[in-house]
Amino acid sequence: MSDVSQFDIASLAKKARQASPVVAQLTTTQKNNILMAMAAKVRAEKSMLIGENSKDIDAGKSKGLTDAMLDRLLLTDARIEGIAGAIEEIVALADPVGSVSGLKKRPNGIEVGKMRIPLGVIAMIYEARPNVTAEAAALCLKSGNAVILRGGSEAVHSNRAISNLWHQVLQDFAIPTEIITIVPNTDRNVITELLTLNEYIDLVIPRGGEALIRYVSDNSRIPVIQHYKGVCHLYIDNDADLGQAIEILVNGKTQRPSACNAIETLLVHSDIAATFLPNAAQALAPFAVKVHSCEQSSQYFDNAELATEDDYHAEYLAQEVAVRVVSDFDSAIAHIQQYSSDHTEVIVTQNYQRSREFIRRINSSVVMVNASSRFSDGGELGLGSEIGISTSKLHAFGPMGLQALTTEKFIVYGDGQVRS
Amino acid sequence: MSDVSQFDIASLAKKARQASPVVAQLTTTQKNNILMAMAAKVRAEKSMLIGENSKDIDAGKSKGLTDAMLDRLLLTDARIEGIAGAIEEIVALADPVGSVSGLKKRPNGIEVGKMRIPLGVIAMIYEARPNVTAEAAALCLKSGNAVILRGGSEAVHSNRAISNLWHQVLQDFAIPTEIITIVPNTDRNVITELLTLNEYIDLVIPRGGEALIRYVSDNSRIPVIQHYKGVCHLYIDNDADLGQAIEILVNGKTQRPSACNAIETLLVHSDIAATFLPNAAQALAPFAVKVHSCEQSSQYFDNAELATEDDYHAEYLAQEVAVRVVSDFDSAIAHIQQYSSDHTEVIVTQNYQRSREFIRRINSSVVMVNASSRFSDGGELGLGSEIGISTSKLHAFGPMGLQALTTEKFIVYGDGQVRS
Repeated sequence: MSDVSQFDIASLAKKARQASPVVAQLTTTQKNNILMAMAAKVRAEKSMLIGENSKDIDAGKSKGLTDAMLDRLLLTDARIEGIAGAIEEIVALADPVGSVSGLKKRPNGIEVGKMRIPLGVIAMIYEARPNVTAEAAALCLKSGNAVILRGGSEAVHSNRAISNLWHQVLQDFAIPTEIITIVPNTDRNVITELLTLNEYIDLVIPRGGEALIRYVSDNSRIPVIQHYKGVCHLYIDNDADLGQAIEILVNGKTQRPSACNAIETLLVHSDIAATFLPNAAQALAPFAVKVHSCEQSSQYFDNAELATEDDYHAEYLAQEVAVRVVSDFDSAIAHIQQYSSDHTEVIVTQNYQRSREFIRRINSSVVMVNASSRFSDGGELGLGSEIGISTSKLHAFGPMGLQALTTEKFIVYGDGQVRS
Repeated sequence: MSDVSQFDIASLAKKARQASPVVAQLTTTQKNNILMAMAAKVRAEKSMLIGENSKDIDAGKSKGLTDAMLDRLLLTDARIEGIAGAIEEIVALADPVGSVSGLKKRPNGIEVGKMRIPLGVIAMIYEARPNVTAEAAALCLKSGNAVILRGGSEAVHSNRAISNLWHQVLQDFAIPTEIITIVPNTDRNVITELLTLNEYIDLVIPRGGEALIRYVSDNSRIPVIQHYKGVCHLYIDNDADLGQAIEILVNGKTQRPSACNAIETLLVHSDIAATFLPNAAQALAPFAVKVHSCEQSSQYFDNAELATEDDYHAEYLAQEVAVRVVSDFDSAIAHIQQYSSDHTEVIVTQNYQRSREFIRRINSSVVMVNASSRFSDGGELGLGSEIGISTSKLHAFGPMGLQALTTEKFIVYGDGQVRS
């Protein structure tokens, strides 16, 4: 079986590569028409999708998936409408492919510029949520890329059903169905083999837990967009507007603690600790936020535990926060540089000089002054739909929209020039 | 010994990482002052450099290096002046670090933009030429990156001498010398270990033969800029200006055949084959260019051999060319898509529609109309000094200047906004 599956994935990937020039050359209108047809098809086939999804839910229950996992797997009328709506939002996004920038004349008369082009073939490796099968494929299509989707075994019926809809739509438009390929085999071996196919695949985007991302990064010969975790810091400066600081803390920590852009560590300048921390404790109390405090801050919180080194590295993803009093601005910067996951860091200050220094000295993917870390998201930052968040610096850094699925080639217009 | 060297490289890389925020925060003036001091130091220490280099040359002769390899290794007065001049050219380049683009106000009033920042720590793995030790380090410094340089064993004395000059200059400016690190150990094991240090190193750039690049790509957990080879195509359209076509062919093939941007395959539209190819044969004859022709074109060349499949994949790097007559424009596109190394492709045509189609449909890193492939080079395209050429699409594609050694983070300016 192993040999068969290995043969299959290479052959699927090769077909995706061969079909990729077709999707790369579609006009924006053609791509939008396909997406609109898919949105309509998803709505029309709602009961079929719910029927197929119920097979996954039943299997998940008998396999003992947690309620949280079953919930992520579940398709409802509202969620299917959400998928159709998400595809329509992608229609509304500007098409990055073909745009030319920086066309300049060189001294010898040749004109040199850059044109944005698709990457080619993108592989998505992801876990439970079946909406990825619809939305990631739509983003890849809009950016002119072929896509290979390898979802988890829990969602196999749902993913196959969505993939069938894609293929029906593509056939209606006489487009090769290989530009959207679902890997039917959910063995781990298939991922291992897929990650060697750098001849056919240009980029791998894993979406899921840290173990999956680490496995993909450690075993891939294809470039990988990595998003390990978000240990986001909020630093309250001695010149902060303390009312703003409380709002930004409460929003960042409690509004959706399971999100990677939630605050995990609060740093407070020692000059304002005695004023700010009692208010912070009071504001967090209604959300039953568990506090891991440094020695100086523990007096302000009921039932605080002393923070360990592990707490400063922790992505709690829960109503839980590490709190540390720092002696000055430089100590805050040093703490962030030591423990940062390169995701999102926020300063609250009314000091002009320190707002500039924070922006300049902190090189995480999103750096903010006086705003909630919860804005660190493709939609909120104005990119439109997001295909992932990169916390490594190569190619893309931070929330990734359509443009992160493209690259630029050089274009040269001459009149017969040769090099002397 | 192996354990010791492994310990050393990880510890060197960790120190480079720790020092990297210092170089990231230097102002353009500070960086330029350091570079000017290095250029002066290189000139002042010319005889020391030539003395150290002669040790490498002597060792190379007794190891039986070829004349070509010895020539690449050799430092002369003129070449040392060339190194100093190259560093001064980097001073003149615009500093990409800190520039902000696309700052826009979102509906909730936050302002979102992107700021260009250094990658962090870059490792260069390269072979003979000692000028890389000076020039690559200068490019990394100007772009705010720490660099780890691992040159070949043939150049060990020359590289150490140049590295000592760097460290003297950095000490004069009270900058940690760890921002420019030369790996003293030239075992292959050290490369293998270095390629696992993704905790400390952000990018690896190998420069050298295909075997080195493949080894690095296959074994690296760190993103790698790949440049395998340049199989550059020149397509002469039926609407070409045939005088231009001859000049572009002769320049592209013969001016510097050892360069990766030299033409390796000539494609000719069948309608003009009988007019163009006799002239091409005559124009190439003085350069004794060996021709591997298709059946249709063999009649026009003396001593042509029939081209095999291997010839269409070949990067000759010599006065040697594959020639193929194609029945139409689409066949030319299909040939290029099948055999392209994604480096550089050229069309010669006076046809408006086909010039546009060629630019749109060919997704190699540099695509040209009516100009010599020899312009596919950082300097000629206006990037200034080049640190390498990427033939893979992620992060950078084509000739890489200073900007390719940086990335962008998101910056957000708010007034206390929180997410609802």
